[in-house]
Amino acid sequence: MRSFSREEIEGFYRSRRARLAEKMKSDGISAAVFEDSEGRRNPAVRYFTGHPSDALYIIADDGTDFLIPWDENLAAQKAVGVKVVPYNDFGRRPVEAAAGILGSLKRKGTRRVEIPPETPYPLFLRYVDALAAEGWDVLCREKSTHDFVVEMRARKDEYEIECTREAARVGDAIIGEIGRGLREGWLKKEMDVALLIESELRRRGCERTGFDTLAAGPSRSWAIHAFPGYTDAPWPADGLSILDFGVVYEGYTSDTTLTVVRNATERQEELVSLVERAAEECLPLYAPDKEIRAAAARADDVFARAKRTMPHTLGHGIGLEIHEFPRVSAKMDADAKFQPGMVVTLEPGLYDPALGGVRLENDVLITGDGNEVLTHSRIIRI
Amino acid sequence: MRSFSREEIEGFYRSRRARLAEKMKSDGISAAVFEDSEGRRNPAVRYFTGHPSDALYIIADDGTDFLIPWDENLAAQKAVGVKVVPYNDFGRRPVEAAAGILGSLKRKGTRRVEIPPETPYPLFLRYVDALAAEGWDVLCREKSTHDFVVEMRARKDEYEIECTREAARVGDAIIGEIGRGLREGWLKKEMDVALLIESELRRRGCERTGFDTLAAGPSRSWAIHAFPGYTDAPWPADGLSILDFGVVYEGYTSDTTLTVVRNATERQEELVSLVERAAEECLPLYAPDKEIRAAAARADDVFARAKRTMPHTLGHGIGLEIHEFPRVSAKMDADAKFQPGMVVTLEPGLYDPALGGVRLENDVLITGDGNEVLTHSRIIRI
Repeated sequence: MRSFSREEIEGFYRSRRARLAEKMKSDGISAAVFEDSEGRRNPAVRYFTGHPSDALYIIADDGTDFLIPWDENLAAQKAVGVKVVPYNDFGRRPVEAAAGILGSLKRKGTRRVEIPPETPYPLFLRYVDALAAEGWDVLCREKSTHDFVVEMRARKDEYEIECTREAARVGDAIIGEIGRGLREGWLKKEMDVALLIESELRRRGCERTGFDTLAAGPSRSWAIHAFPGYTDAPWPADGLSILDFGVVYEGYTSDTTLTVVRNATERQEELVSLVERAAEECLPLYAPDKEIRAAAARADDVFARAKRTMPHTLGHGIGLEIHEFPRVSAKMDADAKFQPGMVVTLEPGLYDPALGGVRLENDVLITGDGNEVLTHSRIIRI
Repeated sequence: MRSFSREEIEGFYRSRRARLAEKMKSDGISAAVFEDSEGRRNPAVRYFTGHPSDALYIIADDGTDFLIPWDENLAAQKAVGVKVVPYNDFGRRPVEAAAGILGSLKRKGTRRVEIPPETPYPLFLRYVDALAAEGWDVLCREKSTHDFVVEMRARKDEYEIECTREAARVGDAIIGEIGRGLREGWLKKEMDVALLIESELRRRGCERTGFDTLAAGPSRSWAIHAFPGYTDAPWPADGLSILDFGVVYEGYTSDTTLTVVRNATERQEELVSLVERAAEECLPLYAPDKEIRAAAARADDVFARAKRTMPHTLGHGIGLEIHEFPRVSAKMDADAKFQPGMVVTLEPGLYDPALGGVRLENDVLITGDGNEVLTHSRIIRI
């Protein structure tokens, strides 16, 4: 990928934080609390601070901000230009940490703090208990500062796009290796292909898989998400074999699915053709200012004509998370439109308990005048 | 492991559900909603139904119950004696599904439904909107039916213990292979050991790792949880190398950490000895009716005498989740005691940015008169 200097990278983080603080100021939000923890993952913390693991992040509308990490040593290495406060100072409790940090802000007048909309109701009550007496109005809303961040994260900046391109490039190289393994006959089991991915991605500078790899031979491909993810069952074998995987570069994941078709029956071939047709017809609809729901409706339409139903959405944003805004679903509102900078999967799929499943998934960058397909997954016929 | 007939296994599930319904009846809770979804994982759904993936589970105090799975095909294969209702019947929305199912119960009089305590505040409001008009009193509390289930799950039944034993047995066999790899010199990188685990566990009938394997050579072992989990850095090498992994058998995970010590300095050896001493002194305190916090306090004490601090708790329950009740922490209340059937990790660890980290972790079953160490992880000196 194109290389960025340390200063350039810091610039991206600074500019994200500045945009957030500006929005908070204009909305009259004095402070916002973000939490990335085992039960409530939120990569917004990494997005604003560079710290890739459990932490609280608290920012005030003047841009003053604090990272309260679970692992200080890790934060010392990873945090980008943000003040780090040890979580142990607050007994590792989020409410106490928020109260402590907010108390240090010495704000006067109206003080509104926005806490994560994922906050469980009982925890919300504890936030209110701890903060209301100090004059804070605690907000926990769906249309929130956090929601603004979700939309902000949906449109990737230049650094994020380059990281995603690199993940896509590594993913493509792995797909190439898989193609070779299929031609040469040394991929025999679900486990073989899954472990090939694990080792190749690390050899090529990626962090990890974006999610648990799903490698499902014909006996298991009828499930949308095979359970378990991979076993020592044959892969590929006669019929439909699915492989769904992503690799992560500097936090940004790819997400691709390929299907291997071997000695398929006519009815299996019909499923495959339908999925290929849906992918082809929907791609041009992934373009700026087009309604997101229109793309999803087109896929539903292709399948409905064949009396088939796709049991999942057509796609989703990817980035620091495997599932980000937007969902490419026919249920989206009319005002949800594709926008330049979004990276969204296109993944039509059909599943039949008797025939098996087929899915074809690639990652699409929305550009100023259309789109660019970043990955090159495909139906592989052997 | 000892084998169970289909009928025996169904018996365990039935008896769990019966215990829950009985508790609800005695607490005046007419119905309870459990949710296992991407943002809010809760294996209680698997615990009561056998279904290992995204779903709602709704149970009434007379034992009538419903599984509303994201993937019907998977539920058809996995659910154990529970009525399955397609999530698509409710547009895949939890509030609508709950309203639909509860509406079908035709209850009269006082009707109280308990929803998960993890329910975000905004979603709680939507539950109230949808259910209050139908006469339901919506409860979302910390001390709840769900909390009872957390405590119930902490004491494993016979089937759960056998599954955990099998996971521990496979984990031990893999530790044996790792020992061989170290002696024979073919384990060279973090990635080598992590991928060995992935393939060996599947060859031996396990589902998956219980969490992302952490293999950290001496350059990275100072982090409690190395980031990324494993890379192509050397493992082992001179100094302290950590390996933290678990394997899952029929849903139940093991959780073990070993440390490889090679050409350690005197100060590194001091860390290792402290951790070994803490493990040894704390183990006898893992016994029925003993205060959980006393075990944690003992470890803190061992370290404090050497002017060291452990930055995490001494242990945690394991089971269908990698972190379950109880936490083995000095902050627990006096009435939290070890109980027969609990499976709890014992994992003292110390981390130093200059020296690296050391952790030793094993899984301990609390028995009627003491404990049984299920796994055999150790400090490996080479």
